[in-house]
Amino acid sequence: MKVGFIGLGGMGLPMAGNLLKAGHDLMVYNRTRSRSEELASRGARLAESPREAATGVDALVTMLADDGVLEAVMFGDQGAILGLGRGAVHVSMSTIGHALSQRMAHEHQARGQLYLAAPVFGRPEAAQGAKLWIVAAGPPPAIERCRPLFDAMGQGLEVVGEDPAQANVVKLAGNFILASAIEALGEAFTLVQKHGVDAGRFLEIVNGRLIRSPIYENYGKLIAQKRWEPAGFKLKHGLKDVRLALAAGDSVTVPLPLASLMRDHFLSAVARGWAEVDWAALARVAAADAGLAE
Amino acid sequence: MKVGFIGLGGMGLPMAGNLLKAGHDLMVYNRTRSRSEELASRGARLAESPREAATGVDALVTMLADDGVLEAVMFGDQGAILGLGRGAVHVSMSTIGHALSQRMAHEHQARGQLYLAAPVFGRPEAAQGAKLWIVAAGPPPAIERCRPLFDAMGQGLEVVGEDPAQANVVKLAGNFILASAIEALGEAFTLVQKHGVDAGRFLEIVNGRLIRSPIYENYGKLIAQKRWEPAGFKLKHGLKDVRLALAAGDSVTVPLPLASLMRDHFLSAVARGWAEVDWAALARVAAADAGLAE
Amino acid sequence: MKVGFIGLGGMGLPMAGNLLKAGHDLMVYNRTRSRSEELASRGARLAESPREAATGVDALVTMLADDGVLEAVMFGDQGAILGLGRGAVHVSMSTIGHALSQRMAHEHQARGQLYLAAPVFGRPEAAQGAKLWIVAAGPPPAIERCRPLFDAMGQGLEVVGEDPAQANVVKLAGNFILASAIEALGEAFTLVQKHGVDAGRFLEIVNGRLIRSPIYENYGKLIAQKRWEPAGFKLKHGLKDVRLALAAGDSVTVPLPLASLMRDHFLSAVARGWAEVDWAALARVAAADAGLAE
Amino acid sequence: MKVGFIGLGGMGLPMAGNLLKAGHDLMVYNRTRSRSEELASRGARLAESPREAATGVDALVTMLADDGVLEAVMFGDQGAILGLGRGAVHVSMSTIGHALSQRMAHEHQARGQLYLAAPVFGRPEAAQGAKLWIVAAGPPPAIERCRPLFDAMGQGLEVVGEDPAQANVVKLAGNFILASAIEALGEAFTLVQKHGVDAGRFLEIVNGRLIRSPIYENYGKLIAQKRWEPAGFKLKHGLKDVRLALAAGDSVTVPLPLASLMRDHFLSAVARGWAEVDWAALARVAAADAGLAE
Repeated sequence: MKVGFIGLGGMGLPMAGNLLKAGHDLMVYNRTRSRSEELASRGARLAESPREAATGVDALVTMLADDGVLEAVMFGDQGAILGLGRGAVHVSMSTIGHALSQRMAHEHQARGQLYLAAPVFGRPEAAQGAKLWIVAAGPPPAIERCRPLFDAMGQGLEVVGEDPAQANVVKLAGNFILASAIEALGEAFTLVQKHGVDAGRFLEIVNGRLIRSPIYENYGKLIAQKRWEPAGFKLKHGLKDVRLALAAGDSVTVPLPLASLMRDHFLSAVARGWAEVDWAALARVAAADAGLAE
Repeated sequence: MKVGFIGLGGMGLPMAGNLLKAGHDLMVYNRTRSRSEELASRGARLAESPREAATGVDALVTMLADDGVLEAVMFGDQGAILGLGRGAVHVSMSTIGHALSQRMAHEHQARGQLYLAAPVFGRPEAAQGAKLWIVAAGPPPAIERCRPLFDAMGQGLEVVGEDPAQANVVKLAGNFILASAIEALGEAFTLVQKHGVDAGRFLEIVNGRLIRSPIYENYGKLIAQKRWEPAGFKLKHGLKDVRLALAAGDSVTVPLPLASLMRDHFLSAVARGWAEVDWAALARVAAADAGLAE
Repeated sequence: MKVGFIGLGGMGLPMAGNLLKAGHDLMVYNRTRSRSEELASRGARLAESPREAATGVDALVTMLADDGVLEAVMFGDQGAILGLGRGAVHVSMSTIGHALSQRMAHEHQARGQLYLAAPVFGRPEAAQGAKLWIVAAGPPPAIERCRPLFDAMGQGLEVVGEDPAQANVVKLAGNFILASAIEALGEAFTLVQKHGVDAGRFLEIVNGRLIRSPIYENYGKLIAQKRWEPAGFKLKHGLKDVRLALAAGDSVTVPLPLASLMRDHFLSAVARGWAEVDWAALARVAAADAGLAE
Repeated sequence: MKVGFIGLGGMGLPMAGNLLKAGHDLMVYNRTRSRSEELASRGARLAESPREAATGVDALVTMLADDGVLEAVMFGDQGAILGLGRGAVHVSMSTIGHALSQRMAHEHQARGQLYLAAPVFGRPEAAQGAKLWIVAAGPPPAIERCRPLFDAMGQGLEVVGEDPAQANVVKLAGNFILASAIEALGEAFTLVQKHGVDAGRFLEIVNGRLIRSPIYENYGKLIAQKRWEPAGFKLKHGLKDVRLALAAGDSVTVPLPLASLMRDHFLSAVARGWAEVDWAALARVAAADAGLAE
């Protein structure tokens, strides 16, 4: 397929590489051009603007940092929406809010373009190994048409509905579940530590015997060992996502008190200077609030 | 070993049965005498009072509903502490507060008796199948002496310290982790449902692909299917445990905002009449607060 | 002065009336035209569009329901910003977010127009009686120029800074303080009532003897008597304002846990169907969560 | 009247002094004897034990730091309950939990003694000037009999019911209202300050124009000026009272989410070393969590 790809960050670069490897004809755009060069050496063409990257393709994939960047890329002066042809499909894989996703669906429809939301679960290593879990929503024929792309980038595709924003909500709710696990571990570790029990030992018991989740294992170890860097997923992005979850709740009148609590803790973490470390550092707020030396 | 056993509830009865099966010489006491009869038919002797159940034994096991019942059993008129001999060990397996555990340690020591806290993780089926996970703390020689008992009742023994109260704190922190998972699932399910996504489908993705925990699987299904009965673990006991976790935090100056949030939701669940159903119904509060018909 | 006035709602209509009474030359615009007629009969001219209302005036006053309406009025097809002359001043008196206020400051500056934020404290009766408290921020000369307008509408002007958004933040923080009082009264009343003490009696003591605030008196009585209607200030607007307070906090990395808690309670109130009643009904959530019959 | 008085702390000493001044025949007891001497020089007799202080009096007044101290004084070896005669009345003026108050009512009744709860609102200066507000509950004849004592110590008596614990709940709910005001001011001040608005200026507007409460005025100034010492009411006592309010709620199935939030903030304040300063320092947690230098 002829594919445009915009956004070559930590996730986007390996995803685009996997599309190339699968034999797709790739046109890429990235604000920082140097990120594109390795792909160019492997056969990708380089676009000068989002618009150019979207021109003449069957599918345009976007994988960007947040709502603001995606809006600029799509609706700016040389925005991709101006290049995309009638009948072509935009596959939006960024973790964005459901409101922007709804707006995007509306704008694409008005231009006879198709739109899918297909956010992913997985860290950069999973993107590299084509092991992402892809959650998609949108018109079924468009999803079918893009299946080869999803096959090249992930280990599984989960279709959750025909309204693209549903995929965004599932992604946000999923990240909310993960953040909740971090918050719970942070508070529990602080409690047992102040009673003289080692956090790692507690983790062995509670995750090793009961929860038995690789997620708890991974975050539990990061927290117990205070390994906040390197950041697999930055705390400031965790804040962004909990904000978007709250907004998704607000839009359908769903209070999310645990998300509210975490929003405030993420903000406090940012105020303490931890925006750029791994979001596991949400747990550090619980420790600091109990006076544990950091 | 000569063992006294007090408390033949949903957990205690199968635990005592497993001690009998392993060949221990058992003297049992239960407030409601009928619960003791099946054990008597299998060879257990019946005590008339807690004191009698503790008299002449090597070890006394208690498995009671809460702090109040344990206090009455130990320190009442015909309390077990009056029967227990010097050098005998009290193995307290109930989920109780760390403060009562500390008091018990103190009282036993003053009488030349030994004291272990050894609360368990597992539901009645696990007690039946001798599949409990036992978390113990106390003087190492006392733990060693009781190992045959633990082997008969559980699939594993986790020693967390020499101060008995540490085992109680680990148990409370563990239940806090479980409750947090229920709270998070309840809020996330409400969010996705109000956006038109099926909760079971969401669970397949988030637990099936990411968390991969039998705990999330179990509670997730109960919640998605609104199966609040029969109660594996009653909501009112979940409230009791989160209260005790908060008290354990308070005693060492640890704020536990997520536990506070759940305490209030558990209380609201009790106010709505859900005290006796499964504590998975904590999730029902999130749904009700969002106006979802119950 | 030649004054344009857009937004003749429950607050705007009496405010505009007071400007007329003070002798200002008024041009008004309202989406629903019938609201303008009484003013027309007293000498106001009627504009056909926001743009027309802003054309040729010394000052344009806007008093609208929320950010969305103000944006439409200012930046729409026949938006007021297109009519306002160089050197004329826009006095934005609506309770809006600090972000929109900042954007407005920017847009007006780019066109050589002046911009003040001047939100008000007070209910419709206060607007009628020219008893509003006006909180203003912006360039001092612009504030001075508009002083006759403020004098006609309010009983006092409080200048809080030169950055217009500061006035919006003060207004939002003020409403947050008021909502907090309602939340506290709601929880306290529920507590004492379930212990058999009359809420009105409690109010007499706690406000009558200690707090001694007309605000507590007013809201305390509404809550104790369950007088949710008529709505002096609608609950849905309370939700809007707490949302904006949270956003104002987020923008400068300030967690606001009490605002978060109230956001969730306001949302739950809306989910229960109380969007249109007085925001004192925030207190009703506390009662309902404790199982008090409504 | 012949009056026993136990507890000569910052509040108790001036209260006892006012009873002396009104001509009552006073027998006092205090753990630290030196506190009693000034009263002795004015005619009070000194008791050697709580029991002695209660022997032969018409009324026994207790004014102690917390539940634990009151329990020790009443039920210890030389406890006051052993001295108090049949028909004599115990007036418990400390801020204690409703559960201890209920127990006390029960114990006194069993001995043919009378029991009133009569906690007070007011700081030491108010105690000195006989300006306390006294909230009483208990059997009406006992209240009437003690009226001369209340007249000597306070500026007003508020009777709230016949069940003594009701007075304790009203006192705890009142302190909860005050703490809520401090929490709200702390968050609002942090918000406006980070937007460049002076906290004192904000207070002038929001309290000066709207709330108009001497309580907000007092605490607002302490917070704006960071005057945490001397402590009018220690933060650790604020923590104690919010704990008791939560327990009072729990006992009648009332969730108190705002009290929970403050409990956690008070605990965090204690963890930061602020137990002994004025409870206005609850507001400091909001500032610290937002990264404001302390």
